[in-house]
Amino acid sequence: MNHSHEGFHNLRNVDDALARFLQSVRRHHIETEGLMIPRALERVLADDIIAKTEIPLSNRSVVDGFAVRSADTDGATETSPVVLRIMGESRLGEACRGVVKPGGAFAIATGSIVPKGGDCVVPVEEARELAEREVALSMSVKRGQNILHAGEDIAHGKVVLTKGCRLRAQDLGVLKVLGIKNVRVMKKPRVAILSTGSELVERLGSRASNQIVDINRLVLAAKVRQIGGNVIDLGIVKDRKELIINALGKAVKSSDMVLVSGGSSVGQRDLVPSCINSLGRPGMLVHGVAMRPAMPTGLASVGGIPIISLPGFPVSAMFAFLIFGSPMIAKLSGGKPVPEARVRANTLRPIKGVKGYRTFVRVALKNTASGFVAIPVDSQRASVMMSIVAADGFVVVPETTGEIPKGSLVEVTLLT
Amino acid sequence: MNHSHEGFHNLRNVDDALARFLQSVRRHHIETEGLMIPRALERVLADDIIAKTEIPLSNRSVVDGFAVRSADTDGATETSPVVLRIMGESRLGEACRGVVKPGGAFAIATGSIVPKGGDCVVPVEEARELAEREVALSMSVKRGQNILHAGEDIAHGKVVLTKGCRLRAQDLGVLKVLGIKNVRVMKKPRVAILSTGSELVERLGSRASNQIVDINRLVLAAKVRQIGGNVIDLGIVKDRKELIINALGKAVKSSDMVLVSGGSSVGQRDLVPSCINSLGRPGMLVHGVAMRPAMPTGLASVGGIPIISLPGFPVSAMFAFLIFGSPMIAKLSGGKPVPEARVRANTLRPIKGVKGYRTFVRVALKNTASGFVAIPVDSQRASVMMSIVAADGFVVVPETTGEIPKGSLVEVTLLT
Repeated sequence: MNHSHEGFHNLRNVDDALARFLQSVRRHHIETEGLMIPRALERVLADDIIAKTEIPLSNRSVVDGFAVRSADTDGATETSPVVLRIMGESRLGEACRGVVKPGGAFAIATGSIVPKGGDCVVPVEEARELAEREVALSMSVKRGQNILHAGEDIAHGKVVLTKGCRLRAQDLGVLKVLGIKNVRVMKKPRVAILSTGSELVERLGSRASNQIVDINRLVLAAKVRQIGGNVIDLGIVKDRKELIINALGKAVKSSDMVLVSGGSSVGQRDLVPSCINSLGRPGMLVHGVAMRPAMPTGLASVGGIPIISLPGFPVSAMFAFLIFGSPMIAKLSGGKPVPEARVRANTLRPIKGVKGYRTFVRVALKNTASGFVAIPVDSQRASVMMSIVAADGFVVVPETTGEIPKGSLVEVTLLT
Repeated sequence: MNHSHEGFHNLRNVDDALARFLQSVRRHHIETEGLMIPRALERVLADDIIAKTEIPLSNRSVVDGFAVRSADTDGATETSPVVLRIMGESRLGEACRGVVKPGGAFAIATGSIVPKGGDCVVPVEEARELAEREVALSMSVKRGQNILHAGEDIAHGKVVLTKGCRLRAQDLGVLKVLGIKNVRVMKKPRVAILSTGSELVERLGSRASNQIVDINRLVLAAKVRQIGGNVIDLGIVKDRKELIINALGKAVKSSDMVLVSGGSSVGQRDLVPSCINSLGRPGMLVHGVAMRPAMPTGLASVGGIPIISLPGFPVSAMFAFLIFGSPMIAKLSGGKPVPEARVRANTLRPIKGVKGYRTFVRVALKNTASGFVAIPVDSQRASVMMSIVAADGFVVVPETTGEIPKGSLVEVTLLT
């Protein structure tokens, strides 16, 4: 037995730790793949998309009404309307070869092409059809009014979407309009996940007394998939140096990033950091972060592959992932940063953290007449899994103050 | 030709329209299905989950250190430590049959079972091993300290997750810990999607002049899938009453909700509302909402199936979906409401809406040293598709004021 009596005396600030971790990954080339449009939803675009056509292709009406020459509507009012002759109709889905001559009007539906000669559209609400194919217009309309001109939505040559954007529903729509059927997207980063601990099992057997069900792989895999990574599940590894080195070696070779949970605190079984260091350079970058939970988090890099040594408690592993894993996966995805949305909530009591540590306080949200109220869940212990199950989100208590006063408006990051 | 000269003179307020629409759906029984745990991510739980075991099963240490009797540590300090005899070790993954007798200590790792007799754990940082299997403890520890007691995380019989919650990664974790392999979840609502318009095509052919590529089905399908619905794509239907009635009839029979875009404004081709009314009761509930874009939105219900008649412009269709479709799908999913997260941003100029209309102003977010700035995108016209492609989100300008003053802090809902 060789008990280390060293605590984490050199805790690193969260921001410094994250910056150092992100910088450790060389800007490697991200591989790309081609995908059909519908399948590219939420994927990161690998090229700028430049319009090779214009949208719309012709001048189109944006209202139901009558295409006319604006000069013909001069002075028209409700009490003294202008009467024009209905010369034809521009029908949706049909070519319109007519020409709007002076004194003439074409009936037109929203989205239909404005016939030649017409330079504006009088809305149907301002038009009254008379007998004998005539229409009385009660409003003067300016040149260009109620028309979407050719190329006004998308001009030929316009950069419509840029490399690194995450494709949303409407982005797929614009690709379809431009006649694009396939796009190149970044390949998803492959994230290897393993758990260490001789106590860990997939499910409790008959010798249940001192075993613990490993849930970190399941939870981390779900989180990785939610934010756009592919998972390589490397299972549970017993607390033996040669087994851990072997598993981590495999992980580094087969993936773009490694998440290894367990064995991270300073104590008898702290094999993971030394195993990481024995794998290659630079090895451990950070061991111990001034945060609660997840203080014993280790951040490392071996041969350009980032490795996070996550504490074994599921609550700690979750926060080590959210604070360090999630931004790293975003970087490896090649995507631009997406603003993080939060819920604003009131506090009824002070929210207490631990001074000197950035504290992630798990809260439930209660909807009241005066907005949301954030209520810390009963136990904030890292060992109590229910603290992330009962919580809707978390509040960040700064290390400088260690407390958020009662009555504050706080921002709650949802645990989704 | 029978041009209607009626505008939307009776626009309904957004909140009233939504309330009426949601109330129109009878509280029907939602069918359920059984799923294996990993596949149940983001699905809506159909039953309460009650713990049939306790977690942890035994008292466990939450630190690396020594399990002792608290009375034995009384008065221990750094300068006058208490020396106890090391009687054994509680190893992870192995049963521990030893008993902590007075004057004795067991080495113990985080997560390991506290041997009988031990009622607290002294952290390794406060312990110094001496020769001859003795340990000097420099701190007195209270009964129960550094122990997670049996059932302290989850007590037997506790309701761990409630019906209607959307299963997150950590929720799957707690199910696994409880030994649950399958859960019953709500079946996803089936959403039928069709587009009407004789001008619509899947892609432009040679007769491109007056055709428009239908993107609403693609965009709406992606949105529906993102929020947890299944899509039934019923394609494009020409502007003929019998075809639309036929397609809507099929849609209502095969789905839990119908999205039909196009033909919604008051004009020559406005067939959809009359077709809906001819299908059954109550038919159209709302036609015309005091909002921009998507003013011509229609909300209907036929035989208990909600129908949204969305305007044809993709921008309008998107907002009709976000404001009315999304909450209805949430209701049909059987899930509890999830708080909507937003980004806070500053404004540099006034953000203008249209007084009397709730205006959804599309904005790009710019990250600056003093936080995000929301900048309205160039064109706010419903006919300009780029206004939802260039936008990161939208700001709601209230109907009462029609404007948000410059320098305001606004909440931006992300268009994800």
